[in-house]
Amino acid sequence: MKTVNLAEKLAMFDGHWDPHVVADYNGNEVMVVKFEGAFPFHVHPDTDDFFLVLEGEMVMEIEGEPPQRVGAGELFVVPAGVTHRPRADAECKVLLIEPAGVPNTGDPATAAAKPRI
Amino acid sequence: MKTVNLAEKLAMFDGHWDPHVVADYNGNEVMVVKFEGAFPFHVHPDTDDFFLVLEGEMVMEIEGEPPQRVGAGELFVVPAGVTHRPRADAECKVLLIEPAGVPNTGDPATAAAKPRI
Repeated sequence: MKTVNLAEKLAMFDGHWDPHVVADYNGNEVMVVKFEGAFPFHVHPDTDDFFLVLEGEMVMEIEGEPPQRVGAGELFVVPAGVTHRPRADAECKVLLIEPAGVPNTGDPATAAAKPRI
Repeated sequence: MKTVNLAEKLAMFDGHWDPHVVADYNGNEVMVVKFEGAFPFHVHPDTDDFFLVLEGEMVMEIEGEPPQRVGAGELFVVPAGVTHRPRADAECKVLLIEPAGVPNTGDPATAAAKPRI
């Protein structure tokens, strides 16, 4: 039970699309992650996906809708069942929240390990 | 399903300790709030409480522990069952996440209304 500094946590790793767990909240994992490039389109059938941009800018692409920019200080919740992919032309730092155990790609076979830092 | 700009939402109200819902996430309400002064000590018996400081600085006081500073870009999760109060010597802007229906004071009789903006 202590203060978590997100910039310090983000400085502990370099890779992209590699979420690291920094806190737990009611059965959810709170993560920091760096985006660059485009993630595969995927869907979480039963759970919403929470994105808060901390630094830089990402684009949320939703199947069948115009892409939406999400900049620093902005959040985006992708509802359960909606096919989506985040994309970032330059490195973008993001706070993610997902229920514990949910694969970030929508598929356990390809999901990131989500180490704790 | 659209980008939520937190600064724009925070500019829509002036009061302190008056959380406004800006998004929903897996049965939780995502809120913005302004803190100034000290909130009453309280407890949520069954649910964790998520705080992310967006601007300024708050102090999290936990019963029986030293107070902890939480500045911009820092988060703090108060586990269920832990008596706590946030305090801010100057105005501080915070992102809060709580399960929908949880009274912010721990008591429905004194809880804030949590309007949606």
